[in-house]
Amino acid sequence: MNKIKGIAASAGIAIARAFILEHPDYTVTRKQADDVQAELAKLDDALAKSRAELEAIKARTLAELGEKKAEIFESHLLILSDPELIDPVKDKIRSESVNAEYALDETAAQFIRMFENMKSAYLQERAADMRDVTKRILKHLLGLQYVSPSEIDEEVIVIAEDLTPSDTAGLNRKFVKGFTTNIGGRTSHSAIMARSLEIPAVVGTKSVLSSVQSGELVIVDGMEGDVIIHPTEEVIAEYTAKQQAYAKQMEEWKQLRTEPTVSKDGVHVELAANIGTPNDVAGVLDNGGEAVGLYRTEFLYMGRDKLPSENVQYNAYKTVLEQMEGKPVVVRTLDIGGDKELPYLDLPKEMNPFLGFRAIRLCLDRQDIFRIQLRALLRASVHGNLRIMFPMIATLAEFRAAKAVLLEEKDKLSAEGIPVADDIQIGIMVEIPSTVVLADVFAKEVDFFSIGTNDLIQYTMAADRMNEQVSYLYQPYNPAILRLVKMVIDAAHREGKWVGMCGEMAGDAVAIPILLGLGLDEFSMSASSILPARSQISKLSRADMERLAEQALQLGTAEEVTQLVLSLQ
Amino acid sequence: MNKIKGIAASAGIAIARAFILEHPDYTVTRKQADDVQAELAKLDDALAKSRAELEAIKARTLAELGEKKAEIFESHLLILSDPELIDPVKDKIRSESVNAEYALDETAAQFIRMFENMKSAYLQERAADMRDVTKRILKHLLGLQYVSPSEIDEEVIVIAEDLTPSDTAGLNRKFVKGFTTNIGGRTSHSAIMARSLEIPAVVGTKSVLSSVQSGELVIVDGMEGDVIIHPTEEVIAEYTAKQQAYAKQMEEWKQLRTEPTVSKDGVHVELAANIGTPNDVAGVLDNGGEAVGLYRTEFLYMGRDKLPSENVQYNAYKTVLEQMEGKPVVVRTLDIGGDKELPYLDLPKEMNPFLGFRAIRLCLDRQDIFRIQLRALLRASVHGNLRIMFPMIATLAEFRAAKAVLLEEKDKLSAEGIPVADDIQIGIMVEIPSTVVLADVFAKEVDFFSIGTNDLIQYTMAADRMNEQVSYLYQPYNPAILRLVKMVIDAAHREGKWVGMCGEMAGDAVAIPILLGLGLDEFSMSASSILPARSQISKLSRADMERLAEQALQLGTAEEVTQLVLSLQ
Repeated sequence: MNKIKGIAASAGIAIARAFILEHPDYTVTRKQADDVQAELAKLDDALAKSRAELEAIKARTLAELGEKKAEIFESHLLILSDPELIDPVKDKIRSESVNAEYALDETAAQFIRMFENMKSAYLQERAADMRDVTKRILKHLLGLQYVSPSEIDEEVIVIAEDLTPSDTAGLNRKFVKGFTTNIGGRTSHSAIMARSLEIPAVVGTKSVLSSVQSGELVIVDGMEGDVIIHPTEEVIAEYTAKQQAYAKQMEEWKQLRTEPTVSKDGVHVELAANIGTPNDVAGVLDNGGEAVGLYRTEFLYMGRDKLPSENVQYNAYKTVLEQMEGKPVVVRTLDIGGDKELPYLDLPKEMNPFLGFRAIRLCLDRQDIFRIQLRALLRASVHGNLRIMFPMIATLAEFRAAKAVLLEEKDKLSAEGIPVADDIQIGIMVEIPSTVVLADVFAKEVDFFSIGTNDLIQYTMAADRMNEQVSYLYQPYNPAILRLVKMVIDAAHREGKWVGMCGEMAGDAVAIPILLGLGLDEFSMSASSILPARSQISKLSRADMERLAEQALQLGTAEEVTQLVLSLQ
Repeated sequence: MNKIKGIAASAGIAIARAFILEHPDYTVTRKQADDVQAELAKLDDALAKSRAELEAIKARTLAELGEKKAEIFESHLLILSDPELIDPVKDKIRSESVNAEYALDETAAQFIRMFENMKSAYLQERAADMRDVTKRILKHLLGLQYVSPSEIDEEVIVIAEDLTPSDTAGLNRKFVKGFTTNIGGRTSHSAIMARSLEIPAVVGTKSVLSSVQSGELVIVDGMEGDVIIHPTEEVIAEYTAKQQAYAKQMEEWKQLRTEPTVSKDGVHVELAANIGTPNDVAGVLDNGGEAVGLYRTEFLYMGRDKLPSENVQYNAYKTVLEQMEGKPVVVRTLDIGGDKELPYLDLPKEMNPFLGFRAIRLCLDRQDIFRIQLRALLRASVHGNLRIMFPMIATLAEFRAAKAVLLEEKDKLSAEGIPVADDIQIGIMVEIPSTVVLADVFAKEVDFFSIGTNDLIQYTMAADRMNEQVSYLYQPYNPAILRLVKMVIDAAHREGKWVGMCGEMAGDAVAIPILLGLGLDEFSMSASSILPARSQISKLSRADMERLAEQALQLGTAEEVTQLVLSLQ
């Protein structure tokens, strides 16, 4: 038995066999083929194996996940038998006397480029399909051992260096019971995805990949951040009990789905969810979210080869607003640049991207991009309860400039006779220390604040939260952070404005008692954290928490704050 | 006439002809020589031209700058006639039938490598000399036009893309009346050097290099940040008058050299200087500095191939302490890492070096390095009035850990019978927002604070001050920054501790009235700013400035603060 410590990224207990996820090397080199017939036979064999594999996956998917999810494999099968692809590959083998894998790779690349250059979204998706199918055939031609995460068909715990967005998109909750990675932190992409999929996860273990053999029994404890390899019978029994207790607790939490969030002494706060796409709204409603506290619009701009049109955006915003049925939806305008690149924007490389040209800084400079998003938002505003939020505001001048652009677009729409809601709240992310310090001045001009703790902590401590060597300085409970939160809340309340929080801290069980005590109005978190938070708040008295918060503000270190909160229990 | 706006980097007015500084391309390619005799003759010709050039420079330097400065050219002449270098070059031309420049470049490179690998500092310097001489001969062999900045022998204004440390080291104030560059900001290396050399400078013009012809008349206004190309007679007369007025003012300022710094209503503050090496102390005393407010020890670690020994450091610290004759010397412990690399430390590349593993973070991890510096400092403490300051403190835990290491080393020295001063103050740089916010807690444990505004502004505004696209956010006068400064001063004074400032802001004429009003105790700046600051403060009433500061703290933007201060005059 071997226990590895990592970062608790998504709650729950998983017990299953290890599935090692390593991306194979598909590099192909051109070789002269002495025996052309042998290459053709090799290709036919790889096609047959790929076909058999796809048929099996399709059948399984149909049975377990339904027709819609199985469709993708049907279209892969069509590509596999498409003479427009296969004939040119065979021609190339014959005419150039080259190896099959090279002929396939070259030919497919031509098709993919061609599809990608077309305007139609349908054809662009075909490029992605073609790429997947080519990889599958290449896998057989090259004799590679690889099962993609989407094809996992037995209960496993995925073990990987890290998980890419395309890996996590393909994860099937039915079979992937948990995952654990070598790198990443609580705010890394894979951790956020794990919470959204409600899969227990431990990230940033540094060594799990080299410590586990494929097929070994593994326990992932997403509450404590522990990974146990090859557990004894006794330990298995212990964690099975823990798993059942957690499931029972989940059931209790589910009872709170339609309840309001009220403290023991009757104070109501709002529990909202952070989302990235309209698809996430279902999870928000399932988990009893009272609002969307942060709609990250970046995803609309990523994974495509040009900017999304006004209509593409309008449809996305409208969908979210309609599905939320009048509940508030806070949409953050484009937060791109820095580490989040868009290939089609050609932004300059920066020495310190986290301190660079991004978010509102970029939008105020590239108003062509900004105005399209604002128009789409304003047009969508009539379909629900829209709130617009500007990210990375550092100065009052920036907020005034951004608001002026918004009002200009609103006037233009009115002149065009297009209806726009009249009650759109306009607020800002508070994630830069200067804005906290001037919160009293900002509070006179904004409708609301939402504290973005992920960035605020990083700037306040001057520590890159992605850099392992300084990650010990990413301290949500540092009294300096708590004092900044208090400054924002007090300043807002003096002007009758509300304050939310949309960083990871809002859903953190240690932070919640203090945040309640400081008077936070809205807590926006991963959808899966809402019910546990509602349960926790229902057991706390706000008056008691006010006293707790006051004590915490006088402490010197994050450790002392943690001790104070834990002494409550 | 053409006027270009840049960043005022060093005060004063310069009027002179443009000298375009562009580094030539010394790349050499190997060529087969059909006529070996012609190559040998070419080499002899280049050697003769180099000799004539060096003789002339030596004579001129001797006459104008004295024997010591001329020595370097004497040693260059010796290399030029050294058969140990020249004979192998000729042999190579003959035996390999190659071109002269290739034979020279290859042979010299061998010698340079050999010298560089030797331990002796003398031989390492010979490597640098050899490199310079080789470049001079190559210049003639390749027919390049290039005068190095150190050889300028008529009054000019240097125009360049940027100036490297080796360029500025060679600048002769007698001839280089001013300079202006395309890139850089007020805190870039070239700007700091210009103030230290007291040469008027305008940096960050973006376009000056492409706007000026060599030999054109240029005016550099280092107060306003203006560069005027090909001025009219009228404009020349105007700036000549301005130049004379500035010279007269400089004379007046010189009268204040031995005066204390006292406001109109009799409040004394301390004007200190920032230094990088013991050589800078002369300038501090010349300009009437009352202390060294920041001794940046990084320079001791740079430009060498291994860590400086305890004795090398001890000697440097002792020299500074002795020369300051009992006046306070605040030494900042090693602030390396991030953008300041040491090749021999092999630090990891980081995505955001300004938010990375540097300064105290690195020193607490690499205590082997840290302890050597602390021992050297403690040993030197008996030679003057030493204060030790830790950089980049973000948490109380870090300060406690650093202080504990210091006290441990002190105990060890005592045990060894080595004397250590008993009154060493131990303080911290306040340059990270978290430390400002917890200043009241820190104030109970430190002896003093020194506010490092360059970094504090960058973190508070979340804007890399080296990144041109966000440099508009580097706002010393932003009310958020002023409020943070106030928080630090108030917290310190409540505990009876003093507060200094060692960022660029401390010497800034717009900031000084507010800083005086906020109660700053020590202002540490470029030595050349001390006398103007003393003059300015003598004309201000602290009581009035307190009211001014109170007003400034209530404003919303940096522009409003600037307006308020300028309305004083």
